[in-house]
Amino acid sequence: MAKFQTPRGTRDFLPQDMLRRNYIFGRVRNVFERFGFVPLETPAFEDWKLLAAKGGGGDEIKNEIYYFKDKSGRELGLRFDLTVPTARVVAGNPQLPMPFKRYQIGRVWRYDRPQAGRFREFWQADADIIGSDSMLADTECIAAAAQCLKELGFRDFEIRLNNRKVLNGMVQLAGVPEGKSQDVFRILDKIEKIGESEVMAGLEKIIGREKAGKILEMIGTKGGKGMLAGQKKLMGSIEIALEGIGELEEILKYARVYGILDRIVIDFSLVRGLDYYTGPIFEIVVKAKNNIGSVMGGGRYDKMIELYGGKPSPATGMSLGLERIFEIMSSEGMFKEIDKATARVFVAPARDEPKLREECVKLTGKLRGMGIPADTDFMGRKLKKIFEYVDSAGIPFMIILGEKELKSGKLTLRDMGKRQEKRLVFEKAAKLVGSS
Amino acid sequence: MAKFQTPRGTRDFLPQDMLRRNYIFGRVRNVFERFGFVPLETPAFEDWKLLAAKGGGGDEIKNEIYYFKDKSGRELGLRFDLTVPTARVVAGNPQLPMPFKRYQIGRVWRYDRPQAGRFREFWQADADIIGSDSMLADTECIAAAAQCLKELGFRDFEIRLNNRKVLNGMVQLAGVPEGKSQDVFRILDKIEKIGESEVMAGLEKIIGREKAGKILEMIGTKGGKGMLAGQKKLMGSIEIALEGIGELEEILKYARVYGILDRIVIDFSLVRGLDYYTGPIFEIVVKAKNNIGSVMGGGRYDKMIELYGGKPSPATGMSLGLERIFEIMSSEGMFKEIDKATARVFVAPARDEPKLREECVKLTGKLRGMGIPADTDFMGRKLKKIFEYVDSAGIPFMIILGEKELKSGKLTLRDMGKRQEKRLVFEKAAKLVGSS
Repeated sequence: MAKFQTPRGTRDFLPQDMLRRNYIFGRVRNVFERFGFVPLETPAFEDWKLLAAKGGGGDEIKNEIYYFKDKSGRELGLRFDLTVPTARVVAGNPQLPMPFKRYQIGRVWRYDRPQAGRFREFWQADADIIGSDSMLADTECIAAAAQCLKELGFRDFEIRLNNRKVLNGMVQLAGVPEGKSQDVFRILDKIEKIGESEVMAGLEKIIGREKAGKILEMIGTKGGKGMLAGQKKLMGSIEIALEGIGELEEILKYARVYGILDRIVIDFSLVRGLDYYTGPIFEIVVKAKNNIGSVMGGGRYDKMIELYGGKPSPATGMSLGLERIFEIMSSEGMFKEIDKATARVFVAPARDEPKLREECVKLTGKLRGMGIPADTDFMGRKLKKIFEYVDSAGIPFMIILGEKELKSGKLTLRDMGKRQEKRLVFEKAAKLVGSS
Repeated sequence: MAKFQTPRGTRDFLPQDMLRRNYIFGRVRNVFERFGFVPLETPAFEDWKLLAAKGGGGDEIKNEIYYFKDKSGRELGLRFDLTVPTARVVAGNPQLPMPFKRYQIGRVWRYDRPQAGRFREFWQADADIIGSDSMLADTECIAAAAQCLKELGFRDFEIRLNNRKVLNGMVQLAGVPEGKSQDVFRILDKIEKIGESEVMAGLEKIIGREKAGKILEMIGTKGGKGMLAGQKKLMGSIEIALEGIGELEEILKYARVYGILDRIVIDFSLVRGLDYYTGPIFEIVVKAKNNIGSVMGGGRYDKMIELYGGKPSPATGMSLGLERIFEIMSSEGMFKEIDKATARVFVAPARDEPKLREECVKLTGKLRGMGIPADTDFMGRKLKKIFEYVDSAGIPFMIILGEKELKSGKLTLRDMGKRQEKRLVFEKAAKLVGSS
C-alpha cells in the first residue's frame, strides 16, 4: 500500500480522466460564454460567519462543511457551493452593471459521509443572473444547462419545473400552520428517495392524516402546460399560488422560443432542499442505463443578496453537477472521441545515436511550431521500447527518423491504430497528423 | 463597508480580470499540451504528514501553511505547491507509464504575511517530467516555460541556470563543513534581495571571513558557455562540481536545438530556496518597467519520489508564477486584445413590446446556434438604458430590432466602438459580428 493517500472523500484525477474532465469543463464554459455569462472566481475558503449565515442552506449545512481557524484565530470554512460566495461578491460590489450574468466553475467541499459517487471535494459549474426579476432570466439559465447537456451528447433528459410559491399555496390550502411548512417541504424533498408511503407517514406525524393526504394529492400531478389551468382552479383564491402558476406559464412561453418546451415537465412534488429559494425551482434529470439522477439544480433566490448586506436584488441560477455528468458519460461510453494523450505524434530515432536524437528534438520542435502537439524520447530508449511506450500512452502517430530517412528527405510515419507505415516528406506527414 | 469580505490574503476575481486570467491559463495549457504534457488534478488538501515530510520544503514550510483537522480528527493541510502532491501520485501509482510528463494548473495556499502582490491563495502552472535522468528533460521543461512566456507576449526575459552539484562543489572547495552547507545556501539565496555585503556579513558569522570571501568570489561569475571551461579548471578535482558542470554543458547543447540558447545565463549565485533540488536549477526573470522578478522557477529533484514511498525515480520540472505574470501583463498593458465581455453582440428591441422581445430572444438563439456569443435584455429596459448597459459591459456590437426591421428583413447593426450603424440582412450582420 502506498505510504501516503488522498484524504478521505477526495480523489486524484489521473491524466486520462483529466482529459475527459477538461473536455466537459471546456464545453460547459464555451456554452456559458456563448450565452453571454462572464467568469467569476472567489477564494476556496470564506469567513465562517458568511457560510453559517441563515438562509445559506439552513442550519444543517453547519455540520456538513469544513471549518478551521487560521494561525491568527480567524474562523474560516471551505466553500460548500458557488452561490453564497457570488452573493457576497454582488453585495460587496454595488458598481457591477446589472444584470450580472456570471458563471463559475470550480471545486466545493462538503463534509458528507463518502459513498459511491459522492465525494467531499467535487466540482460544480454554475450560471446565475443577478438583477432581473423576469422569468426570461430563469428560462435563460435552464436553457444554458440544457444546451450544455446537448453538446456533451445527452439526448434523453427531462427538465422538471416547480415553484416555491405554488408549494407555499398548497400547504396554505391544506391548512398547514405556517411554522410547519419548512418541515413539510423537508419531508416532501425526499419523495424520490424514500417513496410516497414513507413521505405520507412522515407528514402524518407532524400535520395529521387529512392534511398529509391533501398535500400528497396536490403534488401528485405531473404534466405539461395543460395541467396548470386545472391547478389554477384548484388553488382558487390562494394568491401566492396563482402568482407562482403565472410564473410557470411565463417560463413555458419562453421555453418555446428557446426550443426546450418539449423537455419540460411541471412536477409539483419537486421541492429542492435549500431554504433560500423564493420562486421557480428546477432540476434536470438524465435517464441512463445504471444512472438516473439529477445533473442540474437551481431556482430563484430573490432574498439572498440582501441577506449578505447588498441592496435587494432579484436573482436566479443553476448549478451543473459535473461529477454526476462525468460519471454518466463514463458509464454510458460517451467519451469516444477523446484522445488518451495530448501528443498527436511521437518522434523517435531509428537507432540510439546522439545525432539522430538531436534531429528528433528538432523535428518535434518544428511540429509544435506548427501547432501540432508532439513529443519525443527522454529515456534514451531503443526503438522497440519506445514503440511500447507510444502504444501504451495512446499517442496516435509515430514518426521514425533514421539515416535512411535523413538522406532521402522522407520520414516514416506510423499510424498506431491502423498499424500502417508510410514514407512521406515532412510536410505531408505533418498535414496528416495535424488534420486527423 | 461590505458586511462580508474575502478572508485576509485572498481575493475575488471579477469578470474583467477573470477573462484575462483565463486567457493566460488557456495559453499556458495549450503550450503544455503541445509539448505533450498530460493534465493531473489532486485534492486541495492533503494528509498533514505528507506536507510536513522532510524535503517537502524543509521545516520552514510548517509555519507557512494552512493546517486543520476534519471532524474525525484527521490532520490535514491545504497544499502549498503542486510538486509534493504529484510526488505522492507517482509514488502511489507504479502503473503509470514512464516518463510521466504531467502538467497541473491550480491554486495553492501559503500562510505568508500578505503584502503588495503577495497573497495567501495564488495560482501556479507546473510542468514536470518524472522518470528521466536526461538533461534533455530539464531543457524540455525550461523550453516549455519560455514558449509560454513568448506566446503571452513577453520579449525581454532571461533564463538563469545553475546546478546544485556545482554549489555543493563550491562549498567543498571553500572548505565549508558539510553540516553548514544548507545554512550557506539559505543565505546565498537572499543575495538578490539583501545585496552582496549583507550576504557576506551573514556568511562570515557561520563560516568565517576567508571562506565567505572565497564563496562570494566563486558565485560572482555570470555568463554563457565560455565561463564553464574556466569554472571547470577552478573546480579541479571536486568531482561533484565537474559532474554538475557537465550537466550544464549538456543543457546548453540542447538549448541550442530548442532555439533558447541566447536567453540562457549561467548564474552561480542562483540557489533556489527549497531543499529538495539535486541537480540543475533554473529561473526565468522578466525585465519590465516596474516589475523585475522571477516568473518561473524549477529544477531537478531526483530523491523526492523515493521520500514519499515510491521507487527511486529521477524527476525535474518547473512552476510558472501565474500571479506575477498576470501582474506584469496588467502593468505593461499586454492585454490589449482581450475583450471585456464574453458576448460579441447584444440583441435589443427598438421598443418595449412583448412581440419584439420574443423576436430578440429568437435572434439571440440563432446567433448562439452559429457559435457567436450573444446576449439580450433581461431587465425590460428601454433602448436608451440598454445602450448604456451594452456600452459599460464592453460588448462590441449591438443589433436593434424594431417593426421596421422585421418588415424589411434588414436589421440595424451598431459597432459600439466606431459608433457606426448599418442596415443589413441577418446573414451579413452575423458574419460581421462573428469574424471581427
